[in-house]
Amino acid sequence: MKNIVIIGGGTGTFTLLLGLRKYPSNNSVIVSSADDGGSTGILRKDLGVFPPGDIRQCLVGLSYTQDEMQKLFNFRFDKGSLAGHTAGNIIIAALEKITGNTEKAIEIASKMLNVRGQVLPVSLEPATLSAILEGGKKIVGEHNIDEPKQKLEVRIKKLELSPNVRANPKAMEALKAADVIIFGPGDLYTSILPNLLVKGIKEAINKSKAKKVLVTNIMTKFGQTDGFKVSNFVSEMEKYLGGKLDVAIVNNKVPAAKLLKRYGQEKAKPVGVDSGILKKLKVRVVEANLLSDKVFGKSNGDKLKRSFLRHDSDKLAKLIWGIIN
Amino acid sequence: MKNIVIIGGGTGTFTLLLGLRKYPSNNSVIVSSADDGGSTGILRKDLGVFPPGDIRQCLVGLSYTQDEMQKLFNFRFDKGSLAGHTAGNIIIAALEKITGNTEKAIEIASKMLNVRGQVLPVSLEPATLSAILEGGKKIVGEHNIDEPKQKLEVRIKKLELSPNVRANPKAMEALKAADVIIFGPGDLYTSILPNLLVKGIKEAINKSKAKKVLVTNIMTKFGQTDGFKVSNFVSEMEKYLGGKLDVAIVNNKVPAAKLLKRYGQEKAKPVGVDSGILKKLKVRVVEANLLSDKVFGKSNGDKLKRSFLRHDSDKLAKLIWGIIN
Repeated sequence: MKNIVIIGGGTGTFTLLLGLRKYPSNNSVIVSSADDGGSTGILRKDLGVFPPGDIRQCLVGLSYTQDEMQKLFNFRFDKGSLAGHTAGNIIIAALEKITGNTEKAIEIASKMLNVRGQVLPVSLEPATLSAILEGGKKIVGEHNIDEPKQKLEVRIKKLELSPNVRANPKAMEALKAADVIIFGPGDLYTSILPNLLVKGIKEAINKSKAKKVLVTNIMTKFGQTDGFKVSNFVSEMEKYLGGKLDVAIVNNKVPAAKLLKRYGQEKAKPVGVDSGILKKLKVRVVEANLLSDKVFGKSNGDKLKRSFLRHDSDKLAKLIWGIIN
Repeated sequence: MKNIVIIGGGTGTFTLLLGLRKYPSNNSVIVSSADDGGSTGILRKDLGVFPPGDIRQCLVGLSYTQDEMQKLFNFRFDKGSLAGHTAGNIIIAALEKITGNTEKAIEIASKMLNVRGQVLPVSLEPATLSAILEGGKKIVGEHNIDEPKQKLEVRIKKLELSPNVRANPKAMEALKAADVIIFGPGDLYTSILPNLLVKGIKEAINKSKAKKVLVTNIMTKFGQTDGFKVSNFVSEMEKYLGGKLDVAIVNNKVPAAKLLKRYGQEKAKPVGVDSGILKKLKVRVVEANLLSDKVFGKSNGDKLKRSFLRHDSDKLAKLIWGIIN
């Protein structure tokens, strides 16, 4: 049984978990404590709870229960005072208020969903993410980085986490026991890298003998990874990690023209492979058609942008399984 | 095994269920579909769901699961955009939206709470309750009757339900199989009587060979049952029922002076026994000390008034068990 640790959270991780469930692995997901957008951001601000959104998505991804319970956790209200909230976020927030404890809340929600594997907050302390852009401008708050009000054609020079929170001991244990650590799929600056800023995490990753695998995004994201090639993803990852990746997984299937046009309106492009530079970075690049045939919509009431092009769960999981076995 | 059907819903029914769980009875609760106050009213209005509040309280009263799941259903948010809502109301509402079906939603919530017994909406169609006061003034909406903006010293002459909804077939079945039908404890005009206005319900009750037991309130409620004695409760019940009650249960323990003073501010008084008139009504009156020693508070964020004097679960259940066995 392989111990797989996924660092990410959000829709991309959910997609991967749906694929991985067909293999006999023990899956742990480490999720950021800096999320503050949408339903999650409101609950965090109103109630002072750990951001529940990524936890919820990962729990459902690891759930082996009746369909309705998964639907309940993912159900998003589209009207009235609850508009934008998912029932799962509300449940997890309530459980944290009842037990006074994020881990205990996750444990109870895990039982409700008959979860196999575990969802681990990267830190048990709340933190705020900031990005310092080229030129010196500072953007405070994960959501403001993820969906900036003004999209500037400048890159993110440095991410910061404040306060300088410590790692959740259970996340450290999971990293220690990992056979493979997968970064993504997910937004580089707002879902993946914030985890590496937590005290102790990058050291634990670098110390680990696990294979380190990056799943690069299908499309660039304007205002975050604008113009990024695979080498940029790898070098940014290695910069924050202070260590080396083993494998970068890249989709090589070009999305349909009309979808590219839709992404083009947001100045997002397919992530290209720049082999020459990659050789210098000494990472093994695995290219494959990993694109889902489905075009994903957005649920009513959801106040966050979601990717409508996603990885195919089965193709991605199969590829990863091949790499690590 | 006795089949007990309780007609009520709300805090009073919850109290009774907590006591009855110690006896080997099969408990069904029939709850009104006209509730529109507080968290329930908002969810009903925003989402068009069956009023979830009474369902939730009764499900928890019938629940045999771990403590945390009961706490989750009863957890009331006291801050932010969720203030006033209970997590349970939100869960039940989400389940109804997911399944498109109130009964299916109750079934799933019942599994979550490991419920023994059943909670039955009196009708599967929504309805609005109106009260016509002496003098002709009409108050529309359960909540406006329960907590009127202007408390008038006039009695409720007639209750109406609009539209003229039909009974839930499962509620009819439960009444048919009942060994005893208990009315209350609960607010007479807003929790108990609305059930009798649903097409088919009073006929089913009167046809039933079950013993019909009324649990009268501990205190009168100004604007609803102001100045009521036991005989008034019995005669109002029998008027709406168009049939006879067998037993009226009455608390005879006078609450502490300082609590009476607090109730006095709201012009509420202990419900007195007027034996002479009761004899004419041919109902058996059972008096006992049924008062809980506890003084109940109100949870933060709750936007509805709650009784702080309540029946004692164990004393009430024991008395009822004695009467029906």
